[in-house]
Amino acid sequence: MAEHGKAGGLDLQVSFQTHPSRYKHWKLSVDGEVATLAMDVAEDGGLGDYVLKQNSYDLGVDVELWDAIERVRFEHPEVKAVVVTGLKDKVFCSGANIFMLGMSSHAFKVNFCKFTNETRLGIEDASTSSGLKFLAALNGTAAGGGYELALACDEILLLDDASSAVSFPEVPLLGVLPGTGGLTRITDKRKVRKDLCDAFSTVAEGIKGKRAVDWKLVDHLAPKSKWNETVKEKATKLAATSTRPGAPAKGQGVALDPIEPTVDGTAFSYTHVTLVVDPKKRTAEITLKAPTDTQPRKNTREKGASLWALRCYRELNDAILRLRTVYLDVGLVTFKTEGKRELLLEAEATLLEQAKAGDWFANEVLQHMKRVIKRVDVTSKTLLCLVEPGSCWAGSFADLLMMADRSYLLDVGGKDEASVTLTPMSLGALPTGNGLTRLQTRFYGDDKALQQAMAKAEGSTPVTGDACEKLGLVTFARDDIDYPDEVRMFVEERTAMSPDALTGMEQNLRWPGPETMETRIFGRLSAWQNWIFTRPNSTGEQGALSLYGKPDRPVFDMRRT
Amino acid sequence: MAEHGKAGGLDLQVSFQTHPSRYKHWKLSVDGEVATLAMDVAEDGGLGDYVLKQNSYDLGVDVELWDAIERVRFEHPEVKAVVVTGLKDKVFCSGANIFMLGMSSHAFKVNFCKFTNETRLGIEDASTSSGLKFLAALNGTAAGGGYELALACDEILLLDDASSAVSFPEVPLLGVLPGTGGLTRITDKRKVRKDLCDAFSTVAEGIKGKRAVDWKLVDHLAPKSKWNETVKEKATKLAATSTRPGAPAKGQGVALDPIEPTVDGTAFSYTHVTLVVDPKKRTAEITLKAPTDTQPRKNTREKGASLWALRCYRELNDAILRLRTVYLDVGLVTFKTEGKRELLLEAEATLLEQAKAGDWFANEVLQHMKRVIKRVDVTSKTLLCLVEPGSCWAGSFADLLMMADRSYLLDVGGKDEASVTLTPMSLGALPTGNGLTRLQTRFYGDDKALQQAMAKAEGSTPVTGDACEKLGLVTFARDDIDYPDEVRMFVEERTAMSPDALTGMEQNLRWPGPETMETRIFGRLSAWQNWIFTRPNSTGEQGALSLYGKPDRPVFDMRRT
Repeated sequence: MAEHGKAGGLDLQVSFQTHPSRYKHWKLSVDGEVATLAMDVAEDGGLGDYVLKQNSYDLGVDVELWDAIERVRFEHPEVKAVVVTGLKDKVFCSGANIFMLGMSSHAFKVNFCKFTNETRLGIEDASTSSGLKFLAALNGTAAGGGYELALACDEILLLDDASSAVSFPEVPLLGVLPGTGGLTRITDKRKVRKDLCDAFSTVAEGIKGKRAVDWKLVDHLAPKSKWNETVKEKATKLAATSTRPGAPAKGQGVALDPIEPTVDGTAFSYTHVTLVVDPKKRTAEITLKAPTDTQPRKNTREKGASLWALRCYRELNDAILRLRTVYLDVGLVTFKTEGKRELLLEAEATLLEQAKAGDWFANEVLQHMKRVIKRVDVTSKTLLCLVEPGSCWAGSFADLLMMADRSYLLDVGGKDEASVTLTPMSLGALPTGNGLTRLQTRFYGDDKALQQAMAKAEGSTPVTGDACEKLGLVTFARDDIDYPDEVRMFVEERTAMSPDALTGMEQNLRWPGPETMETRIFGRLSAWQNWIFTRPNSTGEQGALSLYGKPDRPVFDMRRT
Repeated sequence: MAEHGKAGGLDLQVSFQTHPSRYKHWKLSVDGEVATLAMDVAEDGGLGDYVLKQNSYDLGVDVELWDAIERVRFEHPEVKAVVVTGLKDKVFCSGANIFMLGMSSHAFKVNFCKFTNETRLGIEDASTSSGLKFLAALNGTAAGGGYELALACDEILLLDDASSAVSFPEVPLLGVLPGTGGLTRITDKRKVRKDLCDAFSTVAEGIKGKRAVDWKLVDHLAPKSKWNETVKEKATKLAATSTRPGAPAKGQGVALDPIEPTVDGTAFSYTHVTLVVDPKKRTAEITLKAPTDTQPRKNTREKGASLWALRCYRELNDAILRLRTVYLDVGLVTFKTEGKRELLLEAEATLLEQAKAGDWFANEVLQHMKRVIKRVDVTSKTLLCLVEPGSCWAGSFADLLMMADRSYLLDVGGKDEASVTLTPMSLGALPTGNGLTRLQTRFYGDDKALQQAMAKAEGSTPVTGDACEKLGLVTFARDDIDYPDEVRMFVEERTAMSPDALTGMEQNLRWPGPETMETRIFGRLSAWQNWIFTRPNSTGEQGALSLYGKPDRPVFDMRRT
């Protein structure tokens, strides 16, 4: 059997651009203030050579889910609650497709899990940051990733019949973890007692009925006879807790147009973003451009999806997902910026102001920027930022600079001097996964340096040349004699090192100190899952994942590590 | 080459019992209130077939370090500061021996790293909990694990000459992480800015002199000419911050006698602990016994090392290390207790009272209990506690019960009824790695249940039978018809599951919620390191770790995951 995702998405024709009219696996419908997102996976609609039975999912199914949630946020401000349910009998969702996992390359599996984790966290972000509430209406068994999806919702309603259960069969049946957030959410979010979590996670058939409620695995039960009315009742109740504009905003939605770059070999040109991949050097360069004209001062919505702040970050999102999924060999991404600082500052100041004033669209645009930069944060590639004359490291772009693994500034002095302009955008609007700002994260434990940087941000004061190194805003400032060599050597050395060691190092260093459920999912749960995925006990010839669905039983190396 | 540690320590004759008079690699000397622990590794003194060049270490070297620190705590209350230095020229310590790592089995490598991590954390615990301060006096280069050892100390003094540096060469040279706490300590403890951490961790030759101070990698520098006086000065200053009794306590030390069980096949009988291993079933049973006589009410020191609370936990420590190192195949440990609750409660109440009153020995005994239970917490084996009639689940023993992955109570009613007695011991004296009590950890997010349990602990009130399940003190209470079958089935099913999946699951579920540097080391850094250890890029035939010291250069699969 051919290895699935060997060269990443290249052999899979993955696209992150879709539309409800083209969904194969989900049905999105809106009824007043409640939307319904119903899973009805097309068995033969998978990206690879496997059958998506029992509402199991692959990356393609997850891309549609992600797209649907983005669209409800931008296109349907009238919606206050989303019911996530299934259209198959007996089963809500049986999780990630095992045959897909079994034939996937390690790198593809890990990237698939990362996107799934991001999508689940996106559901929670919609609840927290936009007041869009989610009800998981489990019309049948929710197993593995199916239950993990339910866990990402605000409330879980389970069908009370003889068979419908919630379950984590991964450990007992597959020798892997409920790794798209599952193990972390049952402790950190649902607050299920840890020994009960253990019991739940080792009983393949799961827990149903009253016991599921007693253990806090689900919130509500309803028998078949009262199913529809209970779903409606719970959704209505959830909607009542929403802070979204609701019915009065009907028709105000902003349609998300497709993001299609012009492609020239491995160069991708979007409107505000360019991505150039150098497969030979295993590097990529992303250039971000400030707005080229004045953005609307009052009604940001009048520009629709072409508003710079929305379009630019949607393009960056597409570029990063493309890099992750298609260009697995690329180990280092260089970020550059260009354009007029004044236009960028003005556009972002307007956005902040309008979001603060309660404008739903400005808030959504801001939250979207936050999610996209977070996606960059967790990308397993070295992030290098270059601050050169003519660049525009200001506002939200500066957040990428604060998070970079390495940054160099070309210090030429004079009026062309390269500079960094922190703004109020970096003071709370764009937290990273640990819940802190990137300034707090960068200067963790160094309050003096943090205060200095925050003072610059409060005044949107440009910091130029060598002063950027002194304030810790860049790693190194170098003159024009040293700069080219030092950057070149850094890139050459970095891309020659073990990609695994770099991934591990970067994931440990990017978030010093405090943790959240989100960093625990990416840094703890995912790391253990990655380890388990490489072990013969799961993915070896006689491993549990490899043998799933076959007559042979797995054979384990019983040494505990 | 034979795989090192294939069957664990069995083929290595590892013992955790040693004494300064038998040290091969360290010299411990005491001069007034300052002790010196000098590393002078015997090249041919390794546990396996490799040469310990350049003060590199293996498990045997680390066992001596651990022993020395325990002895300073118990045998030398007059010591307020320890100077950790080296006796070789040019090099302080070059870290874990690469050839040992290269030939080690995965399970052995991971267990070696775990013990090393525990020993480093033990140094920090001595500083925090006993006021014993540590100065790393780096008389030459501290590389990899050598610098990680320095990081565990309170202050770092580096020789200021042309060659002495601190370095993390793991990523650039070996394709693995500085994984015994290194990457976490530079961010969380030293508060080095994260991009500088990245720069430091990718430059094989390290950082020396003033730059090492500027980057906060070391605290002080001294040239050769002023070395001895600076070491003395800094050690004296550190000693002045110590809360230990110091000179007046000279001669009050309690000698730690050897812990040697009676061995009968795979059954090990200590005084207060028995360990019985069933290699065929891949299980072990540990029985802990309450004191059999009244412990001293006033001067706990009069019993010396035979004081129950010290002896019992030293024995448990030896049993757990034996299980981890020798019996890799054992996947599940059943804990049982026996003895008179009253005697245990009395002994521990005295200990708490005396520690509170400032008695250094009582405090050391308490801190030792804490460390041993923590060692159980991070052990990669399923922890099962059985609460049966005649058992003694009280005081500190109950902390093991609170942390267990699973617990069953045999509910027979009547006056023989099994019970659990939480005491004030569980209210702060014995925190687990996340800094919380095991009650807070068990009932994370359920304040009502936590308050109920704490009320029982405040009154040392026994909870009997089924009420233990109702209060959440055990997972399941079962009558004598169901109990034997259910326990047997649990053990059978558990030991048949993938050991890797279980390790990953248990490590995720044992610590819900908040994290500390300690949990980040075991749960995040170690998980990434474990993953990297399994990857061909480090341990494959052409991996960097495998090829270290050989003429061939590693060949990497460049796909990023």
